[in-house]
Amino acid sequence: MFKINENYQKLPGSYLFSTIAKKVSAFTEAHPDKELIRLGIGDVTQPLAPAVIAAMHKAVDEMGDAGTFRGYAPDLGYAFLRDAIAEHDYKLRGCDISPDEIFVSDGAKSDSANIQEIFGQENRIAVCDPVYPVYVDSNVMAGRTGVYDPKKETWSNVIYMPCTMENGFVPEFPRETPDMIYLCLPNNPTGTTITKAQLQEWVDYANKVGAVIIYDGAYEAYISEGDVAHSIYECEGAKACAIELKSFSKNAGFTGVRLGYTVVPKELKCGEASLHQMWARRHGTKFNGAPYIVQRAGEATYSPEGRTQLKEQVAYYMKNAAAIKNGLKDAGYTVFGGVNAPYIWLKTPGKMTSWEFFDYLLENANVVGTPGSGFGPSGEGYFRLTAFGTYENTLAALGRIQKL
Amino acid sequence: MFKINENYQKLPGSYLFSTIAKKVSAFTEAHPDKELIRLGIGDVTQPLAPAVIAAMHKAVDEMGDAGTFRGYAPDLGYAFLRDAIAEHDYKLRGCDISPDEIFVSDGAKSDSANIQEIFGQENRIAVCDPVYPVYVDSNVMAGRTGVYDPKKETWSNVIYMPCTMENGFVPEFPRETPDMIYLCLPNNPTGTTITKAQLQEWVDYANKVGAVIIYDGAYEAYISEGDVAHSIYECEGAKACAIELKSFSKNAGFTGVRLGYTVVPKELKCGEASLHQMWARRHGTKFNGAPYIVQRAGEATYSPEGRTQLKEQVAYYMKNAAAIKNGLKDAGYTVFGGVNAPYIWLKTPGKMTSWEFFDYLLENANVVGTPGSGFGPSGEGYFRLTAFGTYENTLAALGRIQKL
Repeated sequence: MFKINENYQKLPGSYLFSTIAKKVSAFTEAHPDKELIRLGIGDVTQPLAPAVIAAMHKAVDEMGDAGTFRGYAPDLGYAFLRDAIAEHDYKLRGCDISPDEIFVSDGAKSDSANIQEIFGQENRIAVCDPVYPVYVDSNVMAGRTGVYDPKKETWSNVIYMPCTMENGFVPEFPRETPDMIYLCLPNNPTGTTITKAQLQEWVDYANKVGAVIIYDGAYEAYISEGDVAHSIYECEGAKACAIELKSFSKNAGFTGVRLGYTVVPKELKCGEASLHQMWARRHGTKFNGAPYIVQRAGEATYSPEGRTQLKEQVAYYMKNAAAIKNGLKDAGYTVFGGVNAPYIWLKTPGKMTSWEFFDYLLENANVVGTPGSGFGPSGEGYFRLTAFGTYENTLAALGRIQKL
Repeated sequence: MFKINENYQKLPGSYLFSTIAKKVSAFTEAHPDKELIRLGIGDVTQPLAPAVIAAMHKAVDEMGDAGTFRGYAPDLGYAFLRDAIAEHDYKLRGCDISPDEIFVSDGAKSDSANIQEIFGQENRIAVCDPVYPVYVDSNVMAGRTGVYDPKKETWSNVIYMPCTMENGFVPEFPRETPDMIYLCLPNNPTGTTITKAQLQEWVDYANKVGAVIIYDGAYEAYISEGDVAHSIYECEGAKACAIELKSFSKNAGFTGVRLGYTVVPKELKCGEASLHQMWARRHGTKFNGAPYIVQRAGEATYSPEGRTQLKEQVAYYMKNAAAIKNGLKDAGYTVFGGVNAPYIWLKTPGKMTSWEFFDYLLENANVVGTPGSGFGPSGEGYFRLTAFGTYENTLAALGRIQKL
């Protein structure tokens, strides 16, 4: 008789955003007259930039013509896209990353969940707490996290690095030595980040203790302060210890288009074993490339028009972020983030838990946010709002919250 | 110090099609004047059908308009696509599969590699030999296959079901009892298949021994004979033991578009554990949906025009298959397949190994095929040609081979 992967049974509840979707759909069914405003899941609302749309139409036409039709894409991505990434995201920032160290994928969620596969079962992971739930959940599925404590909501074999008001949401070096360190900076959900000098300390730490850093830079485009690194490879020695995950979802509105990439430097080794080769093998065996049309869309984000249009899109969302942040502050809330990230992280009022505040907001303001506790135990008592709504909806939601 | 997944180090050589690509590119570099004809990798050459192109342009326009823009897709696929699949691929064939048992993905390669994740480490897999390499390789990466014997080219913990000339390329029930049985029918690479009555025996066998069947139906559209099942769910009892993988790559030319789906029936359980729930959890945690534009393209393949156009496309490739089969037969080759599948499987002439014939064909006819041994030890002495070229190239390749 076949057996299942028992690790799946250890996962408590469902994936955070699926739970929210279910709660919201139950509310909508019970109150069909209420108009919800969704500032929960980090989903964008602005249409794709004209340069991207034009590139996609052109690519669609190519796919309809025998002379220009494209079948299977190269395993690791088309050169036109990898070259553009290497030039704009790395070379122009002084980072020495070559196109063949870049692996194009269907998005950073897949990559951040799959990257753990090339590591041994016995590795111990460290995560910021709170953080994007996929890092821990994918390691639970792989059997790397030990036993779950339902009271503490922690795993026995995961090293948590609490990021709270008390430490300014900046992770500290853990007391126990991790093998794999997940860093999401600017952070989802807290919206905070660290300086380049602080990031350099993490790189030095990883190189010292022999850990690998899985660096999730999905929100890089939202960095507005000057002393924040846009890539971990701006730090010295990072190529020997860090993998960087990048997404087109938040800088170019590709949440429904699906495109991301992962950098695995050739220098990154474990003894003789090259992680670059291992990831190439995984990509070649378990993935078949991102769609041609989508890769052309990605390329267009680096064109002069594309870059201008996307800068405006990011500015649009950051205007929302500022409005939420200031509006909530005025209403007496304690708020964080929103400067280098499209997320506002707020302390729930009174002694409300994160889920209590979720229900309260849903029922009384008809606004959907994300409970901080869904991102880890240290997120309890916090709540995330995103700046990805339309400006009008953002102001309307704010008005409703201020009236509570 | 972090450790790697040592299972990756056990994989012999590189992924089959990557090796071929490297050999071909070395040849092209050495002989820039030679015009290669590629009948190797199963990649299509005909442009996308007009109905698909129209649907994609429309979807691109929607993504460029704030009123119709779509962000994250539902985890498991848009209802418009899942409904169309349920109706056309199942209901109209008398199979009782509901839309929420269908999981839309970025292609059958990902699904066929990822599906093993929800099963326990201790399961023993059975595979047809020869077969699509991803089934075994993905299980090697997961550590499920035991020790590799480089002489026999087999894994100690894999049950091989030889499919050779002697048994008409039809797998026989293995002597040892497997937990997971991979069946690819019509088969890649042999191009052969089994009758619905024979498939029913496999379903009965799986239900009897408590095995799960991973049924890869990627080539279903090429079935031309009447007594062959188009879905495993045409067999009684299949919903209790079978997962079906389907692709849009070969029936609709989506190799560079990336779309597939997997059916996990709700009845399929291991004790109390629902595999449907587990796969939903995996999808929700490690995948973020197929692109909206691509899902609309998939929907268009089920429209009346789409179906007519794709029927013509399949007929085009099957005309190639017949030409290759008959042409090679006339030239004295022993050939199989090509009736219910776009693959021609031939015995290598003389005592040539598969790779020797690969090199021979590449050098002397400048035709790229696929060595049978790349699909498993019983593929040694065989060779695969695909019908996915243009008709002109197919005839030209045939002419070159006949002249050898």
